[in-house]
Amino acid sequence: MENEVRVGLIGLGVIGGQVAKVLQEKAGELSLQAGISIKLHKIKVLTSDLEKPLVKQFPPDLFTTNDEDFFNDESIRIVIELIGGERPAYDYISAALKAGKHVVTANKEVIAKHGLELRSLAHEHGASLYYEASVGGGIPIIAPLEKDLRANYIKSIHAIINGTTNYILTRMSKDGIDFDRALANAKQLGYAEANPKNDIEGIDAAYKIAIMATLAFQTEVRPDGVYHEGISKLDSRDFRYAGELGYEIKLLAIAKQYDNTVEARVHPAFIRRDSVLAGINGVFNAVSIEGDLVGQVVFIGQGAGPLATSSAVISDVLRCSRDYVLGTNTSAIKISTSKTVQPITNVNTRYYMRLSILDSTGVLAAIARVLGAHKISIASVIQKETDTLSQTAEIVIMTHPATGRAIDAAIKELSMLDLVKEINNVIRVEEQ
Amino acid sequence: MENEVRVGLIGLGVIGGQVAKVLQEKAGELSLQAGISIKLHKIKVLTSDLEKPLVKQFPPDLFTTNDEDFFNDESIRIVIELIGGERPAYDYISAALKAGKHVVTANKEVIAKHGLELRSLAHEHGASLYYEASVGGGIPIIAPLEKDLRANYIKSIHAIINGTTNYILTRMSKDGIDFDRALANAKQLGYAEANPKNDIEGIDAAYKIAIMATLAFQTEVRPDGVYHEGISKLDSRDFRYAGELGYEIKLLAIAKQYDNTVEARVHPAFIRRDSVLAGINGVFNAVSIEGDLVGQVVFIGQGAGPLATSSAVISDVLRCSRDYVLGTNTSAIKISTSKTVQPITNVNTRYYMRLSILDSTGVLAAIARVLGAHKISIASVIQKETDTLSQTAEIVIMTHPATGRAIDAAIKELSMLDLVKEINNVIRVEEQ
Repeated sequence: MENEVRVGLIGLGVIGGQVAKVLQEKAGELSLQAGISIKLHKIKVLTSDLEKPLVKQFPPDLFTTNDEDFFNDESIRIVIELIGGERPAYDYISAALKAGKHVVTANKEVIAKHGLELRSLAHEHGASLYYEASVGGGIPIIAPLEKDLRANYIKSIHAIINGTTNYILTRMSKDGIDFDRALANAKQLGYAEANPKNDIEGIDAAYKIAIMATLAFQTEVRPDGVYHEGISKLDSRDFRYAGELGYEIKLLAIAKQYDNTVEARVHPAFIRRDSVLAGINGVFNAVSIEGDLVGQVVFIGQGAGPLATSSAVISDVLRCSRDYVLGTNTSAIKISTSKTVQPITNVNTRYYMRLSILDSTGVLAAIARVLGAHKISIASVIQKETDTLSQTAEIVIMTHPATGRAIDAAIKELSMLDLVKEINNVIRVEEQ
Repeated sequence: MENEVRVGLIGLGVIGGQVAKVLQEKAGELSLQAGISIKLHKIKVLTSDLEKPLVKQFPPDLFTTNDEDFFNDESIRIVIELIGGERPAYDYISAALKAGKHVVTANKEVIAKHGLELRSLAHEHGASLYYEASVGGGIPIIAPLEKDLRANYIKSIHAIINGTTNYILTRMSKDGIDFDRALANAKQLGYAEANPKNDIEGIDAAYKIAIMATLAFQTEVRPDGVYHEGISKLDSRDFRYAGELGYEIKLLAIAKQYDNTVEARVHPAFIRRDSVLAGINGVFNAVSIEGDLVGQVVFIGQGAGPLATSSAVISDVLRCSRDYVLGTNTSAIKISTSKTVQPITNVNTRYYMRLSILDSTGVLAAIARVLGAHKISIASVIQKETDTLSQTAEIVIMTHPATGRAIDAAIKELSMLDLVKEINNVIRVEEQ
């Protein structure tokens, strides 16, 4: 008993099932690594889970559907939470930490919303809380921010951190298909959920960048303070023009700090085609971090999927086992400063604008006047297509840096001009 | 005193000087991170170092040229070794660990040659030994292999891990210049040392892959067991043909495990132009790791330079401070299996061969006969250039996989054929 650490797993979904399998199959090797026998002792499941074929691979008394049966089992020293969603996951994690158990979770929503509180709770009760799998699946991101790059002042993070949207954007870019078809495709392949809102609207990415920014900047960046804008408005024309201009369009999660302020935002962005992130395709994820000492480092890998995620979860179980053996625990996050998160209206970037205008003289001058009045200067204008029948033309404007506030105001004014038929799209340009 | 951990630094070269500066400039922030005041207490230097302008930035009593003065100072709890080379660095590190001091080093040669022994020594004396900076400068590589990817069976590592050679190869590939000019350029820019042998011949990369393979495969991979072949024989023609065939040429450090054997080798290799590593240019480094759970993960960044290296060194100092506060230390490496390192003659890869042959009928048939006799099958042959005056032609052969032994024997036989004027180059093709 002294030579064994018992693990309790909550959840037997796609990730939970994979983790259970690996814990079983690799038990010997993992125990050798940990210097202590790691034993999967109990799995808390829903009644419906018991019908799954996977269940037959385990002894029946491993499973329980009863909360008390699981949480009152004092022999469990490590709890793995893999049910996802805010509740009851948050309650389960809190309860485990309060009981002094080490916790491993892949739950980005809980960590983004309650991470600081839970880490303090862990510290207070001599427990550890690890959540490497909450960002970037199996790619090491949390530990590098916490430990390996700790000596740095982190200036910025640019991340492609949602596989569903990156798959869709890759299809739109490479195959020229439109959003709806790419989404349908992603669903067919299991890359998008039946209700893909959290992915498509950038909410999932907002959770992840909130977690990363909090660690990187040592200030609380709450997910509701992260501006997020989805990819559903992107049109195949935007991809075509991006390509002509030397850019790719990616859903970027961005965090920056300078002076005493912080930016944290998720939105589609033009990025230069020769940048590392522009080459990250399909369901791959990539996180580019810039530190004052290290310069730019980039981490690339599969950001989702049960196998890749189990890599992070089980490596974290090994960390817990070590903490158990040594009697140590994770520390609370050091909040060294309290930095203000900039509202998106203050954020300064270049912009791409695609407009349908009347094909007549003086239109460009009128547009330039409006932009100029809002101190937005034009870097280039390209007249893309003219429809002689309707006498409209499509133009693409690339601006110099301007604030979100200035752009919003200018767009509002432009849309009231008779000469402007439609504001087709407005997308930020991100130089890394 | 209780609330302070004293650091002793050995070496005030380019890296040592930078580390001293950062420790001084960031003292407040680092101490806040560590939860204990981190104080640079003593710097052991050579007498000649005392002439450096940097010295004036520190109080004079910080410096000592006396070994005993440094090693007998019991108040030093963390020793940073940054002199490089095997001796006396190895002796210094041993002495510090035996005295129970935590050690941080960037010394790839010492760690490659003595890492296992030094980690055991550390463990035995309750000390920690960290060496993140020994591989890939500031890019996290050691910690991911030790911790973040620990749940994986690591199948392979493919790494561009020497900035000097990657700079030279990038210039040769992009600008079509020859090796000597690219090397001269690298020297001018400070990317290559006056005597660049360790870099050019792949010895530096061999140390680094030995360190990574030992951690990844949990078996001792000694640097003298790592085959290494340098880049000086590469010709601008090889780059031209590689480009035409859809490849780049990179100096790769490769480690693989399968069944119960291990491969570890450093040599120039053809890699597909669309692979991530093919896009790593200039002094950047990249390490691609394939695990059974995580799939492929890639770490990219500046693999050298004082600032990037100081990121790893000082992050390791923070780890030591934590170990000091908690009273913990690094564990000895778990050697779970003893795997045999394959001699290069057993290693199976595809090959690129460039030959000058007599431009007459029957030559190709003769070459194919020799290769066939050694069970080497040809994937493609391209006749590249014909010199009508000397009646010679250059041909490029791409083979299917063959062992080093078979290729060596076939090359020997080919070189004796009258029809073959010269074996210009033979380069492995590495599919990742």
